[in-house]
Amino acid sequence: MAHADRITCPVLATRVTTAEEAARHVEHGMSVGISGFTGAGHPKAVPGALADRIAVAHARGEEFRIGLWSGASTAPEVDGRLAEVHGLDKRLPYNGDPTLRRLINTGEVDYVDAHLSHTAQQAWFGFYGPLDVAVVEVAAVLPNGLLVPGSSVGNNKAWLERAEKVVLEVNHWQPRDLEGFHDVYYGTALPPHRLPIQMTHPMQRIGDPYLRVDPAKVVAVVETNAPDRNSPLSPPDDASRDMAGFLVDFLRHEVAAGRMPPSLLPLQSGVGNVANAVMEGLLTAEFEGMTAFTEVIQDGLLDLLDAGKLDAVSATSFGLSEDGARRFLADPGHYKGRILLRSQEISNHPELVRRLGVVAINGMIEADVYGNVNSTHVMGSAIMNGIGGSGDFARNAYLNFFVSPSTAKGGSISSIVPMVSHVDHTEHDVHVLVTERGLADLRGLSPTDRADRIIEHCAHPDYADRLRDYVDRAKAARPEARHTPHLLEEALGWHLAFLRDGRM
Amino acid sequence: MAHADRITCPVLATRVTTAEEAARHVEHGMSVGISGFTGAGHPKAVPGALADRIAVAHARGEEFRIGLWSGASTAPEVDGRLAEVHGLDKRLPYNGDPTLRRLINTGEVDYVDAHLSHTAQQAWFGFYGPLDVAVVEVAAVLPNGLLVPGSSVGNNKAWLERAEKVVLEVNHWQPRDLEGFHDVYYGTALPPHRLPIQMTHPMQRIGDPYLRVDPAKVVAVVETNAPDRNSPLSPPDDASRDMAGFLVDFLRHEVAAGRMPPSLLPLQSGVGNVANAVMEGLLTAEFEGMTAFTEVIQDGLLDLLDAGKLDAVSATSFGLSEDGARRFLADPGHYKGRILLRSQEISNHPELVRRLGVVAINGMIEADVYGNVNSTHVMGSAIMNGIGGSGDFARNAYLNFFVSPSTAKGGSISSIVPMVSHVDHTEHDVHVLVTERGLADLRGLSPTDRADRIIEHCAHPDYADRLRDYVDRAKAARPEARHTPHLLEEALGWHLAFLRDGRM
Repeated sequence: MAHADRITCPVLATRVTTAEEAARHVEHGMSVGISGFTGAGHPKAVPGALADRIAVAHARGEEFRIGLWSGASTAPEVDGRLAEVHGLDKRLPYNGDPTLRRLINTGEVDYVDAHLSHTAQQAWFGFYGPLDVAVVEVAAVLPNGLLVPGSSVGNNKAWLERAEKVVLEVNHWQPRDLEGFHDVYYGTALPPHRLPIQMTHPMQRIGDPYLRVDPAKVVAVVETNAPDRNSPLSPPDDASRDMAGFLVDFLRHEVAAGRMPPSLLPLQSGVGNVANAVMEGLLTAEFEGMTAFTEVIQDGLLDLLDAGKLDAVSATSFGLSEDGARRFLADPGHYKGRILLRSQEISNHPELVRRLGVVAINGMIEADVYGNVNSTHVMGSAIMNGIGGSGDFARNAYLNFFVSPSTAKGGSISSIVPMVSHVDHTEHDVHVLVTERGLADLRGLSPTDRADRIIEHCAHPDYADRLRDYVDRAKAARPEARHTPHLLEEALGWHLAFLRDGRM
Repeated sequence: MAHADRITCPVLATRVTTAEEAARHVEHGMSVGISGFTGAGHPKAVPGALADRIAVAHARGEEFRIGLWSGASTAPEVDGRLAEVHGLDKRLPYNGDPTLRRLINTGEVDYVDAHLSHTAQQAWFGFYGPLDVAVVEVAAVLPNGLLVPGSSVGNNKAWLERAEKVVLEVNHWQPRDLEGFHDVYYGTALPPHRLPIQMTHPMQRIGDPYLRVDPAKVVAVVETNAPDRNSPLSPPDDASRDMAGFLVDFLRHEVAAGRMPPSLLPLQSGVGNVANAVMEGLLTAEFEGMTAFTEVIQDGLLDLLDAGKLDAVSATSFGLSEDGARRFLADPGHYKGRILLRSQEISNHPELVRRLGVVAINGMIEADVYGNVNSTHVMGSAIMNGIGGSGDFARNAYLNFFVSPSTAKGGSISSIVPMVSHVDHTEHDVHVLVTERGLADLRGLSPTDRADRIIEHCAHPDYADRLRDYVDRAKAARPEARHTPHLLEEALGWHLAFLRDGRM
C-alpha cells in the first residue's frame, strides 16, 4: 500500500500507524463512534484490533466494554468481533449482526433502537453523553486535510465533530474516484439557530464533497485494503415478484388518477430482496425520469440507472452485492453526477422527505388488522434488527408502503395478526400494505374498514377466516367499544400459540 | 346585527341568507369541511340547521348522512347536534365530543384519527376524495372579498380552496380586532413543487393576515353572534401541580447542563389542566423571554404573556375558558403582535417543529414500562379523543414530555402498565414521562433500563411492585428474548382485569 497517493496531507501522514496502536486509544467505559452503514464504509481493521485488546484484558480479568455508535449496520469484523469478545455494553442506533443480536436478546448488551435521522442531532443535544473516540473509514486524505468519504457517509460528520479523539482508516479498496460522489451538509446547527435546508430536488448539492476533521484530534491513521460486506442477494422469488407487481400496478393507478406525476415522486426503498424486486418491476414498467431519495443504493437502483429509467439517486450509503460492487467499481465515472451520498441526518430528514413527497417502500415483520406495523420485534420481545429509517420515511412520505409475504416459517406464522406484538408504525402512519396475496389501500379509512380490506387483500387464506372471526367476535363482545375491536384475552394469542406450539 | 360593518364586500353581501337556506346546499353522502379547533371558530348556526334538515329527512324515511372534516374538536352545537340526529357517516381528523364519541365507539360512525399536520395535505393529495361544501366561520369579510379569520385557523385555508361550494358564517361575537392576529401561509404546494418554509422564529410572519376565497364558490353568507365553547377550566389540583413541578425542575436541570438556553426553546403544550398547571409553574419560575410554538392558546399562556415571562405565542387556535375569553376580549390590542394564529399544517409542521427545537408537553392515557405511549384508546378498543397534534410535536421535538397522573378512576387504573393497549407514540419517540410520583428521563436508554426508571419514578406504589415482578418474570421466562421482556399471556392482563373486575 503506497500511502503517498491516498494520504497527501503532510500533518496527517505523520499519524500513520498500525490498527493495534490505534486501538490503544480506546479504554473501558468509553463511547466509540464508528463509520458504516449497511455493511459499507465501516472501519475494517481497528475494530478487530480493539476486539483483540478487549479479549486480552478480559483474559487478565479486567473489565473492558464500550458503547458503540454507528450509522447503521456494519459487518462481522465490527459488530460480530466485538460481540464475540463481549466487548459491547451499549449499541446504537441500529444493528443487523446475528452475534450481537443474540447478546442484545439475552440482555447482555443494551440496545437503543432509534430513528436514523435522530441519532446525530441527539448526540449533539447531549442525550447520549460524551463521545470519546471516532473511528471513521475514508477513501483518501487530501493535502489540506479534507477527507474523501468512502462508500457511506452515515453519521461520520457528527462523530468527527463530536469525538475527543479521531482514528481514520484509509481504505485502498474504496475507489479513489469516489471523490465527488458526496454531499456533506455543513449547515446543521442546534436550536434555536437552525435554518431551512434549502433543497428542493433529490440531487441538489447543499454541502461539500468532503468531510472535515480537526487535525489536532486525529491520533492515528490506519491504512487498509479490504472490501465492504457486499452480501450476496438472492434473486427475487415468486412472492417478491408478486408483491412488486401489486406495488407497481398501484403506482400506475395513482398516476392515472392524477395523484402522482408520470415520473413518480422520489423513491425510497428499504434494504432486502423485496425492495430489489420492486426495482426489478420498475425496470420493465413505463415510468421514465424517476429519481430516488433513499438511504441505501442496492443493485436494483444501479440497474435502473443503467437502464436510463432512473435519473439519479440520493442516499447515505451503498449496499451492493459482490456483483453490484464489481459493476460499480468497474466504472465509477459512469455513475458520477447521478449518485450523491449524504449524511443520514439529511438523507432521512423529515423536512426533506415531506417536502420532496417521497414514496416510501419498507419491509415489515407483521401488521395487524387495524394497520399497526411491527418492524423490529419477533413475538413481542426479541429484537430482529431495528427501525432504521423506516419511521423517518413512512411518517413523512407522500405515500408509504409496508411489504411482507403473508406468512413466514413455512406458513406457521401469519404476517397479518389480530394485534401486533410491538408497534413501530402506528395506525396513523400506514398508507398501504402489500403481501403476495394483494394490496390494501388504507388511506382515509377507519380501523374497522382497514380490517376488512387487510383481511380480504393481504391475509393468507389459511388465516383470513380466523382473522375475520376475531374481529366479528370482538365487535360482539363489547358493542360499546367498536372503534378498534379487540378481545384482549386473545389479542396476542396467535404469538403465544407460536411460542408454545410452533404454529399460529 | 348590522352587517354593514362586517360584510363590506359588495359581491358577498348579496349572498347573505339564513342558516336554514345555507344548509340546503348539503346533501346526503356529501363531505363537508368545517372550521373549528378546540371549541374555537367553529360555525355556530349552519351545523344546527343542517342537523334539523337531516332529522326531517330521517323522519321521512330518507337516508341522510355526511362526512365531516374539521380542524380538530368543535362543540356540542356541531358534533353533538349532528351526532344526535345520526347525521354523520365519517369524521376526521379529530373528535372531542361525548355524543359523537359514543357513536364512534358503537361503530355507527367511521372515525379517521389522523395527525393534525397531515389532514390538509392528505385532502390535497386526494386521499379523502372530493370535498363538497366548506362551512367556515370568519370575523369579517373585507371590501375586496378577503376574509378576516376568527379565533382559529385550523384547516380553513384547505377547505376554502378544496370545496366546491363555500358557506361563510360571519360571527359578530368574534372581535373585529382579530384582524392582524393571523398569518396564513399561501406557499404550500404539492410535491414535486414544494419549497422550504422560510421560518426561523416562532413569531415570524410568512403569510397573509387574511384567508382567500373564490367569491364564485360562496353560495351563502350567514351572520351569527354566538360565543366559542370556552369550557371552564378547573384550577390545577395537587397532582397537576406536582407534575408541573417535576417538569419545570427538569427544564431547570437541562438549562444548567447547557442543553437548553435560559429562555428555553419554544414550548408546545397539549390541552387540559396539566398543561395549564405547567404554565402556572412557569409563571413563578426564573425563565424569561420564552416563546411558544403550539396548537392552542389556553389561559395559562395568557397569564405568561401578561406577566411578561412569555414574549410571544404562535398557535392555530384559542382554547380559552370563559374567564380567559373575557380577559382577551376586554383588550385584544394588548396581545396584538404577541399572538399569531396559523394554519394547523404550519403550527404543527414537522419541518418547523424540528427546526425550532420545540419542547413538547402532551398528556397521555397510559404508558408501558418500555416507554410506549397510548394517547387515544381506553382499554384497547374505545376511542377517547384522538392523537391530535401530539405525534407532530413529539416525534420532531427537541425534547418531549408525556404527562399523566399515575392512576385513574380512584386508583383502580394504573397509568403505567406492562404493555399499552394501543400505541400512538412508540418507544423510539418518547423522551420523558411524568406522573405526580416523579419523572423518568428515558433518553438514550434501552427498553429494560427504561423499565427500571419508569417503575421507580413514575408508577404508583400500589402497582410498582407488580410491574417489577412482571418484568422480572418476563426476563426469566424467555432468557433468549430479553430486549423487551414480555409475558404475552399477561401483557394485557391488567386491562382485562379492569374490564372484568373494575380494577387493574
